[in-house]
Amino acid sequence: MAAITFHPIGTIFSEHKNPEGTPIQFSGAKDHLGTIEIFPEFIEGLADLDGFSHLILIYYLHKIKTPKLTVKPFMDDFQHGVFATRSPSRPNQLGLSIVRLNKVEANKLFIQGLDILNETPLLDIKPYVPQFDSIQAEKIGWLENNIHKHLTTKDDGRFIK
Amino acid sequence: MAAITFHPIGTIFSEHKNPEGTPIQFSGAKDHLGTIEIFPEFIEGLADLDGFSHLILIYYLHKIKTPKLTVKPFMDDFQHGVFATRSPSRPNQLGLSIVRLNKVEANKLFIQGLDILNETPLLDIKPYVPQFDSIQAEKIGWLENNIHKHLTTKDDGRFIK
Repeated sequence: MAAITFHPIGTIFSEHKNPEGTPIQFSGAKDHLGTIEIFPEFIEGLADLDGFSHLILIYYLHKIKTPKLTVKPFMDDFQHGVFATRSPSRPNQLGLSIVRLNKVEANKLFIQGLDILNETPLLDIKPYVPQFDSIQAEKIGWLENNIHKHLTTKDDGRFIK
Repeated sequence: MAAITFHPIGTIFSEHKNPEGTPIQFSGAKDHLGTIEIFPEFIEGLADLDGFSHLILIYYLHKIKTPKLTVKPFMDDFQHGVFATRSPSRPNQLGLSIVRLNKVEANKLFIQGLDILNETPLLDIKPYVPQFDSIQAEKIGWLENNIHKHLTTKDDGRFIK
């Protein structure tokens, strides 16, 4: 299939100016505040968003230089296929985070729980709905023995080199 | 910011040949089986995926004609800003589903719980990890009074017209 062209709907601003030291998951970033500025032409789409406590953000991992198919993720010492990881170094460089929405003011969203780099281009916002999105998955593969690290592990910049 | 170009990593095949009658959420599609064929150049990225019971799929909603900023979603009789809905008619036409992974055979993934149209271009696969992705969001906005419909409501084709 031919290439698909996307245009950002806004920009995510956070205190994470560099990959090094950034939380690797939103679960480990609960205290990190940030804002999203939606471009004026998309403001109409924000109506009623303030009724939701959590949002799913889909964004473009703009700092990744060379996407890889095999990666050593932050939470393990072994290599894994990239689609079995949440590594930012991946084909199409699509990032996904769940954040808390604290407030909406015109085109500005005040959000919390940011594991996202400053100035990241935002592609989509979806409301998080536990009845759709909260699944009790019984198998988490190689993460089974590593999951305890997710609250404290930080990015070390390995995927922008 | 300039446009971003994406290339599909594979194709999703399902029994849903037309939007009309397709479940509107994966929660209402538990019995629907399908397959994903990953393009040969991405097979390396599938290593260790079979350890996970559930996957997050990010895909391109290829049947949408004119993305809208205000929509009447399937589960309500009122209009809402598109980013406060899971409507397929949205800027960048990005779809997100959580599916069960039953089996991996070479470049073929056998999946279950499909609310996705046949021949949908796949952009990314991420492993579903409850410790990251299962959130007890306390507010679900306009869905609060409509959420009971999610297991039975079907697409009526309104967004491809």
